[in-house]
Amino acid sequence: MEINNVEKITDCKYLNLFSINYRDRVNCEKQWLFASRSSLSNPLVQDYTRPHAVVIVPFHKTQGKLVIIKEFRFALGGYQYGFPAGLVDKCESVEKAGKRELFEETGLTVTSVLKKSPAVFSSSGMTDESVSLLFAECEGCPTNRFNEASEDISVMMLSRKQASDILLDKKIRFDVKFWIILDTFSSQGMI
Amino acid sequence: MEINNVEKITDCKYLNLFSINYRDRVNCEKQWLFASRSSLSNPLVQDYTRPHAVVIVPFHKTQGKLVIIKEFRFALGGYQYGFPAGLVDKCESVEKAGKRELFEETGLTVTSVLKKSPAVFSSSGMTDESVSLLFAECEGCPTNRFNEASEDISVMMLSRKQASDILLDKKIRFDVKFWIILDTFSSQGMI
Repeated sequence: MEINNVEKITDCKYLNLFSINYRDRVNCEKQWLFASRSSLSNPLVQDYTRPHAVVIVPFHKTQGKLVIIKEFRFALGGYQYGFPAGLVDKCESVEKAGKRELFEETGLTVTSVLKKSPAVFSSSGMTDESVSLLFAECEGCPTNRFNEASEDISVMMLSRKQASDILLDKKIRFDVKFWIILDTFSSQGMI
Repeated sequence: MEINNVEKITDCKYLNLFSINYRDRVNCEKQWLFASRSSLSNPLVQDYTRPHAVVIVPFHKTQGKLVIIKEFRFALGGYQYGFPAGLVDKCESVEKAGKRELFEETGLTVTSVLKKSPAVFSSSGMTDESVSLLFAECEGCPTNRFNEASEDISVMMLSRKQASDILLDKKIRFDVKFWIILDTFSSQGMI
């Protein structure tokens, strides 16, 4: 497999399409498209160890419950259940971004970071997007009054039994990371 | 939150950008971009219960190991560790697509489907892409001789100890679903 060149084929502010020209294993010239938030003309030279976004898996210790959000997602034209998440600002640490996003989206405060994943990739068949997962304990009373104007979020706290019930609800749309973690949390407990 | 209109702003074959015009909670007009493989002019009317792709989590029962792949990913300009996966063809069931992709990418045969997720979303802040996770038992000898010419895949089988070691290797790039499942498999066993 040999990459010949990378071309930015749109000129949008927050998200663009890039085209890769390559030769496959039998030497045929082909094209692969992917989406990227990168501001670079060639995203393949980016630092892949730095995640673009952080996803917080928050466990409310005094309540003994997992904190989740129901959020309006434009790309789905409706609501999705998931974990609080957001882009990591330039020069911001993953931990700081996670604490900030948890507070903005749920009003809760991180008390302890339990585990942090490296930058892992969301769906590398179509995008270079990476996230770091931050498993954390938190405290406080949930509220959505710190949401931005483009956010429409409800905060919920789930026991293992409630997590199990939610997974069976066919009307709910789930984020994939959320579904996997909720499935483990409901059946075995991972925190 | 009120969506005014959806516009397809590129005209590519396999992946496109779409722009949503909306009014936020304080009535300001704004724009949200997302990437989609949809052939519809407005992907928001698609059937969200049907996943675009399938991800197989294959457990080799006689070996007692998890099957994983190391695959060249164009969007990352390098190799990533993950599970076998691929698009679900039109009119194909998720189970059939999962069996086909497992065979094409690893040479292994599904003997039993243990669990299937609904269509869950990869990263709905930037794409409508959904996948179904298929946890399955499989048999056979791993090979990459059924790979397509644009695929560059190595098959590996991991014990819990090997899974644990791989997670500590800082040179490896991981798919996010793979990282979460491997983390659970290595510490508690989920299959």
